[in-house]
Amino acid sequence: MRKRNAALTESDRIANIERKKNMAITVVGSVAYDSIETPAGKRERCLGGAATHFALAASFFTDVRVIAVVGEDFGPRQEAIFTKHNIDTRGIERAAGKSFFWEGSYLDNLNEAKTHRTDLNVFASFEPKIPAEYSDSEFLFLANIDPVLQRRVRESMPGVKLVAGDTMNYWINDHKPALLEVLKGLDILLINDTEARSLAGENNLVRAAHSIQAMGPKTLVIKHGEYGASLYSAEDENGTKCFKIPGLPLEEVVDPTGAGDSFAGGFFGYLASQKQHTAATYRTAMFYGSVMGSLAVERFGTERIASLDGAEIDARFETFRELTHLG
Amino acid sequence: MRKRNAALTESDRIANIERKKNMAITVVGSVAYDSIETPAGKRERCLGGAATHFALAASFFTDVRVIAVVGEDFGPRQEAIFTKHNIDTRGIERAAGKSFFWEGSYLDNLNEAKTHRTDLNVFASFEPKIPAEYSDSEFLFLANIDPVLQRRVRESMPGVKLVAGDTMNYWINDHKPALLEVLKGLDILLINDTEARSLAGENNLVRAAHSIQAMGPKTLVIKHGEYGASLYSAEDENGTKCFKIPGLPLEEVVDPTGAGDSFAGGFFGYLASQKQHTAATYRTAMFYGSVMGSLAVERFGTERIASLDGAEIDARFETFRELTHLG
Repeated sequence: MRKRNAALTESDRIANIERKKNMAITVVGSVAYDSIETPAGKRERCLGGAATHFALAASFFTDVRVIAVVGEDFGPRQEAIFTKHNIDTRGIERAAGKSFFWEGSYLDNLNEAKTHRTDLNVFASFEPKIPAEYSDSEFLFLANIDPVLQRRVRESMPGVKLVAGDTMNYWINDHKPALLEVLKGLDILLINDTEARSLAGENNLVRAAHSIQAMGPKTLVIKHGEYGASLYSAEDENGTKCFKIPGLPLEEVVDPTGAGDSFAGGFFGYLASQKQHTAATYRTAMFYGSVMGSLAVERFGTERIASLDGAEIDARFETFRELTHLG
Repeated sequence: MRKRNAALTESDRIANIERKKNMAITVVGSVAYDSIETPAGKRERCLGGAATHFALAASFFTDVRVIAVVGEDFGPRQEAIFTKHNIDTRGIERAAGKSFFWEGSYLDNLNEAKTHRTDLNVFASFEPKIPAEYSDSEFLFLANIDPVLQRRVRESMPGVKLVAGDTMNYWINDHKPALLEVLKGLDILLINDTEARSLAGENNLVRAAHSIQAMGPKTLVIKHGEYGASLYSAEDENGTKCFKIPGLPLEEVVDPTGAGDSFAGGFFGYLASQKQHTAATYRTAMFYGSVMGSLAVERFGTERIASLDGAEIDARFETFRELTHLG
């Protein structure tokens, strides 16, 4: 069974994930190798990249198709991690040379990576190509890459129903005009506190959120690291504009790499699995984002998400409910 | 009507505050004058002090009795702020001299006050005296004062059922042995992130919480400023040990002074109003703490809480529920 279809109790109505084969997400972003050091240990050249983390997390909820470029060091063993989760890899281009490589550590601060080395390799000349088979995708996720490429992919897929994206301080600070163009075409932006403050030029996160919503994305998810995440949406039928979920209390974070992309995968994957998108759908999506993000950090790289089963997702969902709900 | 008794809907069972005249809280702490500057403006010598903020917030839930010392500058106008809320002031001793005075600002950082001046005045020789009329109090709150005094009050009231307390970095860093003695006699400790990390000597807040619980207080509330608060309790019937509530998204914080004490007043005041203390009671108490803390910062000093009505408390409670609950 490919998509999760857990046996849920009556009271679990919110976890009622529908399976919609055609509600596919196309994601464009990096597929890479990461060498990571954290207080919990070290891993050399594990499979990583934003598109990888996103696709694996989203694959538990809906069909996922990847657009990326890899080098000759990407072999059948890596490909199998995707195909085992029925992720469509036809858009992963093979180029001469090596895959994107990142080396970083979190020894002083688990909330912020210290980058030791970034080799763009084949990614330096990445020209996203969209396979014809992806053209009926209704959902598009623009992972954290050059906003010029994000925009190109967005414009090549005019038929998509919902577009979400991510970015980082480098693009906010040094490529703002290109990024602002991308934001105009986004329905949902997912960024962290620092990025939100920097993008808006405003320290108060509520005012920053409103200012970013005015740049294009009607829905904004701001991730607060260990303090959880906030959803800002346009006024809904109940007048509620903000929803919050706290961080899971974790005694140990093994590796934060990919937590944000796994959050995005759970969040957007759940949305793609749902026919209707009400305020309640977005709330539940915040829960699934937090579920996938909190699971991702329990082991290095993709280890935890790649070996996950649906029951673990349900159990973590319940943990978040217990952590936040009165009754 | 003195205690709030809002008309609640069926579904509002959790907000069902019982009125128990005899479940009184005695609070010991400062009653003071504060001169405060924030980005929103300035106030000279407004009524403040931890015991004041705590008592006003708790007074919406149960009977409150204050133990403090004030100077000759504390007149009928100040006293009326307490008596209007039926707070028992018989334990507020009048001494020759001036009341405790604090001057501070939050111009750079709303999360941390910069102290410009502290005049202990009559507080320097404070010897808490407990009126005979307070001796049947079942609840005791030890606001942030010298742990030597906290302990003396605790030992003078052996009949209390539940004891909660607060402290600050000054006592943690420079008076730790005395503080550790106080902690042994506490059921509940309420502190912030920095204080928790410093007290435990541990950066990870979950591990810090467990280590502090081992020092005495079985229940620990850690306040995260704009990111809300966490409740760590001993294993309950559901096995849940942690409950979290996010911060209210506020576009403007007028004055954070007394927010922590107002949180404590809502939290402990609600507990004192309840016959039974289950895990659900503590969860609801976290909500009422957040309600009172979030209201307190909307105006300077005690202005907001002192002029509050029960309907505003109910409305804010609903806002927190909307902000956190799936359905």
